[in-house]
Amino acid sequence: MKRKNIALLLEYDGSRYDGWQRQGNTDNTIQGKLEKILEKMTGVCQEIHGSGRTDAGVHAAGQVANIHLDTDMDEKEVQNYLNRYLPEDIRVLQARVVPERFHSRLWAKEKTYTYYIDMDEKSSVFRRKYVYALGKRLDVNAMQQAAGYLVGTHDFAGFSSNKNKKKSTVRTIKDIRLQVSGSSLTVTMTGDGFLYNMARILAGTLIETGLGKRTPDSVKDVLESGDRQAAGFMAPAKGLFLESVAYEPEIFLLNKGDGETVR
Amino acid sequence: MKRKNIALLLEYDGSRYDGWQRQGNTDNTIQGKLEKILEKMTGVCQEIHGSGRTDAGVHAAGQVANIHLDTDMDEKEVQNYLNRYLPEDIRVLQARVVPERFHSRLWAKEKTYTYYIDMDEKSSVFRRKYVYALGKRLDVNAMQQAAGYLVGTHDFAGFSSNKNKKKSTVRTIKDIRLQVSGSSLTVTMTGDGFLYNMARILAGTLIETGLGKRTPDSVKDVLESGDRQAAGFMAPAKGLFLESVAYEPEIFLLNKGDGETVR
Repeated sequence: MKRKNIALLLEYDGSRYDGWQRQGNTDNTIQGKLEKILEKMTGVCQEIHGSGRTDAGVHAAGQVANIHLDTDMDEKEVQNYLNRYLPEDIRVLQARVVPERFHSRLWAKEKTYTYYIDMDEKSSVFRRKYVYALGKRLDVNAMQQAAGYLVGTHDFAGFSSNKNKKKSTVRTIKDIRLQVSGSSLTVTMTGDGFLYNMARILAGTLIETGLGKRTPDSVKDVLESGDRQAAGFMAPAKGLFLESVAYEPEIFLLNKGDGETVR
Repeated sequence: MKRKNIALLLEYDGSRYDGWQRQGNTDNTIQGKLEKILEKMTGVCQEIHGSGRTDAGVHAAGQVANIHLDTDMDEKEVQNYLNRYLPEDIRVLQARVVPERFHSRLWAKEKTYTYYIDMDEKSSVFRRKYVYALGKRLDVNAMQQAAGYLVGTHDFAGFSSNKNKKKSTVRTIKDIRLQVSGSSLTVTMTGDGFLYNMARILAGTLIETGLGKRTPDSVKDVLESGDRQAAGFMAPAKGLFLESVAYEPEIFLLNKGDGETVR
């Protein structure tokens, strides 16, 4: 049997899970579900490496993970096997044999998160589990201005829940896009990496700016002080999606028509 | 207090309901939920008239209903009151005061149903409750040909579960559109009216045609014989949406951006 390093492109509804990362006994995580099935498939227990953790309740449209397997199955067979045994809220969109040394987290060049807000009290019934129903109008121009200060290379310590100050908290946010369609507002954030809870705290800070609870300039102080207390609240997990993880060269050729159109 | 005839544009996730039409004691229907709240609002129990029934498990993106109320509330206040007390899987998209004689069913000119099929075994995790995951490829050309025979004014008795042969079973299907995007196939059906279970049986018959289990021509025999047994199976409720109900003149000016975009 040949040893293969297989990368998986994953989609999941995080609603009923305790996030990506495996936990001891009471395991109810995406990583845990995948490893259990892969163990059944190969007979050996191996770790699957995710591009990063997603919090409890956070969704993924394009999470990437990789695992080394001794199997005669080809890419498509691995994908089908997993989809057959995975619950209906986790799906493998694509599987690819990648170079031996490929690591989904260490090789990730860029990540994109999307945060979905509905300015109505009630969101589309079909989207209700995937959007934060705010129920208030937002000043998108003020949010845009604050977003402008956040883009770039900064110390984002103030925008993270991580207490561990040993590791560097400097990250580069390449783009923050705000799109309004009717009552829905979408915040798309792209960067070379995101600290623990960073995407949700950025979203929460932008929301407070849009509500006029803080000035656009105030985010500059947070970047300078690195004070978590000075930043905004942590927006609810249900509105956040890990949209995509970029590699060079790209490893997945996703059929965009697949699983992308929802009513 | 002025008596008003108020029309509601409704959206609902039918997954956990026994359909539109109120039922005796153990009531778990859309109509029942609405009437209970309107009774609390006005103090009087009145019937709300739907444009038509939707089966248990069938969804609606644009159901229309109307009710006569004695209230000082304006349209927006009625909408907000209902949305405040309705469960999160039923939403009023718009409320409008309409002419005294307006009746959502009797005045309906045209209805559009959409049936969502995924040709993969597993559909998008975010759409899983709103699509029939078929797991087989379909011959869309054969389906298109069968659809061509169905369009027009015919006796659709064979495409209905309704045993009552007293009422006319002649209907006019104005259009059946098939759209493929990746693994998803959407069947959009527009007609002046649909018999009991007709939309689901039309979808099921087209699916059997796409699977090669029956010839496109075979639907002609069903139209001629009126034999339910000759038609296809009744496609699962979860894939069906009552998309819209048309009136002349139109009564709703829906902001299409609202609640229409889902990831």
